[in-house]
Amino acid sequence: MIECDAAICVRPGEDLVIDRIRVEPPREGEVLVEIAASGLCHTDLTALDGSNATCVYPLIPGHEGAGSVIEIGKGVTGLRPGDHVIPLYGPECGTCRMCASGRTNLCWSIKATRDKGVMPDGSARFHRQSETVHHFMGTSTFSRYTVLPEIALAKIRADAPLDRACLLGCGVTTGIGAALDDVRAGDRVAIFGLGGIGINVIQGARLAGAAEIIGIDINASRMDLGRSLGMTQFIDASMEGARTVEAIRDLTEGGADVVFECTGLIPVMRQAFDSTAPAWGSCVLLGVEPKGAELAVPPVGLRYGRKLKGSYFGGVKGRSGLARFVDLYMEGKIVIDPLISHRLSLAEVNQGFAMMKSGAALRSVIVFE
Amino acid sequence: MIECDAAICVRPGEDLVIDRIRVEPPREGEVLVEIAASGLCHTDLTALDGSNATCVYPLIPGHEGAGSVIEIGKGVTGLRPGDHVIPLYGPECGTCRMCASGRTNLCWSIKATRDKGVMPDGSARFHRQSETVHHFMGTSTFSRYTVLPEIALAKIRADAPLDRACLLGCGVTTGIGAALDDVRAGDRVAIFGLGGIGINVIQGARLAGAAEIIGIDINASRMDLGRSLGMTQFIDASMEGARTVEAIRDLTEGGADVVFECTGLIPVMRQAFDSTAPAWGSCVLLGVEPKGAELAVPPVGLRYGRKLKGSYFGGVKGRSGLARFVDLYMEGKIVIDPLISHRLSLAEVNQGFAMMKSGAALRSVIVFE
Repeated sequence: MIECDAAICVRPGEDLVIDRIRVEPPREGEVLVEIAASGLCHTDLTALDGSNATCVYPLIPGHEGAGSVIEIGKGVTGLRPGDHVIPLYGPECGTCRMCASGRTNLCWSIKATRDKGVMPDGSARFHRQSETVHHFMGTSTFSRYTVLPEIALAKIRADAPLDRACLLGCGVTTGIGAALDDVRAGDRVAIFGLGGIGINVIQGARLAGAAEIIGIDINASRMDLGRSLGMTQFIDASMEGARTVEAIRDLTEGGADVVFECTGLIPVMRQAFDSTAPAWGSCVLLGVEPKGAELAVPPVGLRYGRKLKGSYFGGVKGRSGLARFVDLYMEGKIVIDPLISHRLSLAEVNQGFAMMKSGAALRSVIVFE
Repeated sequence: MIECDAAICVRPGEDLVIDRIRVEPPREGEVLVEIAASGLCHTDLTALDGSNATCVYPLIPGHEGAGSVIEIGKGVTGLRPGDHVIPLYGPECGTCRMCASGRTNLCWSIKATRDKGVMPDGSARFHRQSETVHHFMGTSTFSRYTVLPEIALAKIRADAPLDRACLLGCGVTTGIGAALDDVRAGDRVAIFGLGGIGINVIQGARLAGAAEIIGIDINASRMDLGRSLGMTQFIDASMEGARTVEAIRDLTEGGADVVFECTGLIPVMRQAFDSTAPAWGSCVLLGVEPKGAELAVPPVGLRYGRKLKGSYFGGVKGRSGLARFVDLYMEGKIVIDPLISHRLSLAEVNQGFAMMKSGAALRSVIVFE
């Protein structure tokens, strides 16, 4: 057992508690990782507010981390102590039907246990006093030490700074990957919501050669960062309201080639769909809707050529594909540093979530000292 | 002026009236066509029942025809008298932004006038006594003679029998083209609704190399024809009801690679969406929903990889692409003859629609004598 500090969500609706925990050594196929840094992401909020059906409390949130391997369990062959890694909430076993299909980056080989807050063998590795503490998203990066299955760790190059590379564990990759998958050179692109995902869709669209990149947000303070990343036009949805769709159509000869939805709000999803080019526009959903909410669209728009789809972790297979994104960063083709608005200690985690909710922070990163 | 018989919808809700009309000669860019045969399609019903917003009454329905050129107007360069043609409700001007995009088979260059029941110059070519009779879908193939813009006529080979080739003007092409666009070799395919469209999706899926083709209908009488065209399994939705989705999942390891919806019923569209493979399945909408109806889906399903799209006229550009389908027919790679359940005279058109509504007819064709 190793002892360390972690941020624990004892029950939903309460502040996270910073306390000592005991972390069990890795079992077969598992890896003990020392987390260097972890970003705060909206999906963590679903654990804090109780809206996430896969949560078993108490748990340790956090899923956007980076760190190094401390110890490997029996049968681990692809990682060694000292390797730098990014934890993956979406694993890549490489052998299941999904991994073998070549049609998806999803791997549900350990989903059943992950969604119950435990390791694939059915047990948790975290303990606080006499109590078991559960994993969250299979990652739990708000603990200095965490345990993951080998198939849920992407090995990355050793020269990438972990306190920035951590953002590749979720938001940056989700945004850039989605854009690289769907944007073609010369496209007109629109992006609803310039938070941690949308701002990265801008980067990806620019990389893909988009001719126009229209950002839409109710927070005009996002404009300058957006422009610095490649955004060509900004629509202030707090001013335009229901006219937002028309404003996009005016800028794009009737509709954008690809529209990304990054707010998770159903009415905004509908605006995104309606903003696509009628005969071929794709609407790509990235934002997470309230539990059980549904999006209604007119089938005639689909028959005439609009497409509705989504993207998960930017379409990237973590173990085989994430290293490419680290390279893009190290080569200066994408930026991460300006996206980090706040650097916090673990003890400041609750302030971090308060700033996320108020919109004051674009992305906060917890750095373990 | 030329005189002939036509089936006229004087006002919605009434039987079609067979009467003499006068057809004006073709104006600039227009072509006078003698229709040899015309299929009866569900979309014609929307003119008869008044649910189609693009109808101006009285009008001449019919949009699934084939015939030969009688006379060309000034400026017509691509067609000559005697050429065999299929009228296109979706034209192909070749020069507009949509035609030039390479991303769609839609051409809306004359949509505004077509949807008002007139020719591109704003006037109609049909007259009955002192009254103007409007065009329908720009085709009006329930008249022995009709006038179309050159850009709405596909020239076809002279040896194709017009009384079968007419079905390529809508249903056959819509079904086969959609399947050829979306089905990959080895795919598991499901098709909801084995009417004039769905039965042809079977043919297209077989041509595309689908490994399994599951047909779903409430009418078990469609089973034999479906099997003869390549269907490998049949689900009787009148027996399975809400279990239909589960039945498809059982047959496909969790969901079909591509699912085609050919009924136009919103609850069936949702079943079709839910029947797709969770991480990569495509749901392709072909059926026409009741006016204004919308389809609601869970965004999480899209983020995980399901796709929602549609198809219009099988994704085929009429003037440049339809000849390939005529070739497929003439080479015996697709069949049309077994799809024609009834051959009628123009005078029997109302009986034809009655059989369509009752499900007694798969496809009726009016043959002009």
